[in-house]
Amino acid sequence: MIKGNIINLFTEEIYPVEVEIQGGLVKCIREVNEEFENYILPGFIDAHIHIESSMLTPSRFAEVVVPHGTTAVVADPHEIANVLGVSGIKYMMKDASTVPLRFFFTAPSCVPATPFETSGAVLGPEEIDELLQLDDMVALGEMMNFPGVVGEDPVVLEKIRLAQKHSKPVDGHAPLLSGADLCKYVGTGISTDHECSVRDEALEKKRLGMKIMIREGSSAKNLEELWKMGGDFLVSDDRHPEDLLHGHVNQILKKAVEWGVDPVEAIRMVTVNPANHYNLHSGLISPGKMADLVVVDDLENFNVKKVIINGELVAREGKALFNVKPAKIKNSFNLKNTSPVDFEINPTRTNNANVRVIKVIEGQLLTEEFKANLEIVDGVFKADLEQDILKIAVVERYGHNKMANGFVNGYNLKKGAIASSVAHDSHNIIVIGTSSKDMSLAVNTLKNNQGGLVAVCDENIYSLKLPVAGLMSVMSAGEVSAQMNKLHKVVNSMGCELASPFMTMSFMALLVIPQLKISDQGLFDVESFQFVDVIK
Amino acid sequence: MIKGNIINLFTEEIYPVEVEIQGGLVKCIREVNEEFENYILPGFIDAHIHIESSMLTPSRFAEVVVPHGTTAVVADPHEIANVLGVSGIKYMMKDASTVPLRFFFTAPSCVPATPFETSGAVLGPEEIDELLQLDDMVALGEMMNFPGVVGEDPVVLEKIRLAQKHSKPVDGHAPLLSGADLCKYVGTGISTDHECSVRDEALEKKRLGMKIMIREGSSAKNLEELWKMGGDFLVSDDRHPEDLLHGHVNQILKKAVEWGVDPVEAIRMVTVNPANHYNLHSGLISPGKMADLVVVDDLENFNVKKVIINGELVAREGKALFNVKPAKIKNSFNLKNTSPVDFEINPTRTNNANVRVIKVIEGQLLTEEFKANLEIVDGVFKADLEQDILKIAVVERYGHNKMANGFVNGYNLKKGAIASSVAHDSHNIIVIGTSSKDMSLAVNTLKNNQGGLVAVCDENIYSLKLPVAGLMSVMSAGEVSAQMNKLHKVVNSMGCELASPFMTMSFMALLVIPQLKISDQGLFDVESFQFVDVIK
Repeated sequence: MIKGNIINLFTEEIYPVEVEIQGGLVKCIREVNEEFENYILPGFIDAHIHIESSMLTPSRFAEVVVPHGTTAVVADPHEIANVLGVSGIKYMMKDASTVPLRFFFTAPSCVPATPFETSGAVLGPEEIDELLQLDDMVALGEMMNFPGVVGEDPVVLEKIRLAQKHSKPVDGHAPLLSGADLCKYVGTGISTDHECSVRDEALEKKRLGMKIMIREGSSAKNLEELWKMGGDFLVSDDRHPEDLLHGHVNQILKKAVEWGVDPVEAIRMVTVNPANHYNLHSGLISPGKMADLVVVDDLENFNVKKVIINGELVAREGKALFNVKPAKIKNSFNLKNTSPVDFEINPTRTNNANVRVIKVIEGQLLTEEFKANLEIVDGVFKADLEQDILKIAVVERYGHNKMANGFVNGYNLKKGAIASSVAHDSHNIIVIGTSSKDMSLAVNTLKNNQGGLVAVCDENIYSLKLPVAGLMSVMSAGEVSAQMNKLHKVVNSMGCELASPFMTMSFMALLVIPQLKISDQGLFDVESFQFVDVIK
Repeated sequence: MIKGNIINLFTEEIYPVEVEIQGGLVKCIREVNEEFENYILPGFIDAHIHIESSMLTPSRFAEVVVPHGTTAVVADPHEIANVLGVSGIKYMMKDASTVPLRFFFTAPSCVPATPFETSGAVLGPEEIDELLQLDDMVALGEMMNFPGVVGEDPVVLEKIRLAQKHSKPVDGHAPLLSGADLCKYVGTGISTDHECSVRDEALEKKRLGMKIMIREGSSAKNLEELWKMGGDFLVSDDRHPEDLLHGHVNQILKKAVEWGVDPVEAIRMVTVNPANHYNLHSGLISPGKMADLVVVDDLENFNVKKVIINGELVAREGKALFNVKPAKIKNSFNLKNTSPVDFEINPTRTNNANVRVIKVIEGQLLTEEFKANLEIVDGVFKADLEQDILKIAVVERYGHNKMANGFVNGYNLKKGAIASSVAHDSHNIIVIGTSSKDMSLAVNTLKNNQGGLVAVCDENIYSLKLPVAGLMSVMSAGEVSAQMNKLHKVVNSMGCELASPFMTMSFMALLVIPQLKISDQGLFDVESFQFVDVIK
């Protein structure tokens, strides 16, 4: 029996009640004649998140978010699917099943993201059909391939058809899509969007009946711009380990109310709205629904006092009351040791030393391209530390023995190299360095670590191991965050002033965001959507 | 291409648009810089109606309601199911398929309504499972057996489980159910109620998460009492042929706005809310949704100018633009001709002439019981026209050769008899008369007519034939209404002053509403839920 003031999301009343629970379900709610300080809310639901971006396994993720009042998430395992396919998704589900947090998943619709990179797996219609048969697979995941939808790519349309066959919704991802193309996109049955960044964009999508997910995560923050527009869900999309220590949905809720969203409306956006959309049988306090409840101190700060999932008290005063033992590790690291020579770039014509350089822009996924003239020493291009033109490479890790080299500006490393096995969306190894030797050492270390982040500095090696698919740690959020901070300090001491050097690097391989990017197959110009030569 | 002012139900804006239609679906909606007088709304949906109560076949029903802007209905074929079972429901679906109106159905959950009457069919879990597999069977129909739910009747719970297996909602029917019993009822997953008659009742149900259907039909009218409380749907439940000539959902919408419901909210209650609840892929103007639209002159009177279903203009200025040919008739009339002697009641003890009498209350389904002392002539009780104690009988019509006799007060017939094959819920033949001879003639006429309504007056016979299951005519609403009016005048001339003598008679066999009722198996006391003797 839980007592407190209920916020009735159906009638918008607040009154004192006792909630009777039986067999994990709400049995009855009775108004009582008592005074309470606390409020009982349905447990919070993050309707769109990529768990992998927390660098935590689902169980470790649960450990840190449940005390914040999160009782369910709709997770798109897009990252691990690119590495390990269906077996990676099943790892996520298995690990998730060891903790009380309710994990619902969406079947990743775009694996691989493009045909211009080597991923660890391909999810075709057959795999999607298999995944959508699972009860906990509640939707087809975000359809990022909007050109494919608009252009009526038969494989894309078949995946959408399969979702309809299984009576499951299709999530959208269509930044700035508009007009007739947007009508076409919506017309296929895609019903949500979490990529709106400006109000007019959200308005156009909302008018057409799309449900708007207002995103306020560690990277993209759209609440300030969009809250007045109104939305259906508040989601995080991506949430980094350090941020998770401080809050999750509860923090977004607090921010929304601070901005001016009506508290009842804001609560609906993280409870009943996602529950109804994804058919979760939770998200509301009603007889027969899952007894997933949160007790908070007020409707401004949403400080979470107690968290109940399936009728059990699972967190109290910020502490999880359950133990975490991540499931047995799954990974895919199939590459040979590299040699420094693998990272050299030979000029094709001795007289021409002009190269294309990827220009990084702080805090953005976008890059620019510029031309630079580099010195040739011993028949190979040399990084130019004065001009801040470093070397970048992507080394394929799924046994196909591929790699590509290029140049990058904006990292300002004065020594050493940094490497990562988190590199969107195929998650090959990406490395940036001042010398081929340090780059090779960084990549080989990462190979031995079976994934993670590495910094090589003055022949010292610093690393954060991510042995689950090269994306996630089995450590707690606190430990991951501490190691991450230490790595950031090292990279900082090497001259780099970027706020998140590893995260920024991970997007250098994301071929769908302009301008110049790099995959294991070469330097890629996003505008013309084709490979280009490093040498100009 | 349809042009007009759109009421955007997502953003609550009104602005001029053109709606592009392709292949029966909305393709795109574009804002245009023009001025329009008319408004484009999603087509109206009646989320709960028993078509049989209109005495029209589905196709004839469509003919009269589509010009009023109705583009879809969720129909519970409970009445025909009691007569003909699954084959009756399939008749409804087949006939419905001949017209543009979209008919969705619910699988009747309570056939027969009680074990104390002989129905034409029994729908057990096997039949329910079969029905729920059909795409157009969108829910389990109203669960009237709320004592069975609360008492955990295994057959009742199994039917609810089957709906959940098919991911379809379960409609409720729980007048005045409250407290722990209501929690239990809601807890099984029953999610709507259309039986609320007072505000507190609706509030209690709404607080628990039930969706409230505010009913405003030909019989029950709850809008005045409930509109302030707020509801999710506006429904008719029952709508008689004459009323259908004047309007349908459009009329309820107009009334709701007159009472004070916000027009956008009222429109939602007959469009997007039912569409979302029953997963109808209509009810909103959005790309990819069915192009079911209504053009009205304003948002006060909702005068319907044009009706579009599946992208086709199907009605204009009150006229249906499609032809109606009702499907081949289905019926079940299996009884022998009666003789006057069948309607005689013999006293068991010559000295005791006290009998139980059903007392009809004008305008109510409720009856009362009183005791009367009757004259015995030639060894049988005699109707007492001075005291207005007439004879009533139910003659079973499904081949089991059963019948029961009793007495009724309140009809005030001074001659003749009236009979009907519409008699809730089993729809045996019910007859009220001043003499056994006239009663027998009325029943035999009804048998020859294969159902309908009959009045015998001064040896003249007046009738309305309802040859479809003894419940529905194949004639148009106008013809049925005219014949009904004529019959009412005849019955009126026989002395009866009730507003709807046949409808009132049809509820005399409804065993679930107190106090004294009659089935083919005998006189029934609803409070003690058992048969009682006519002779007291």
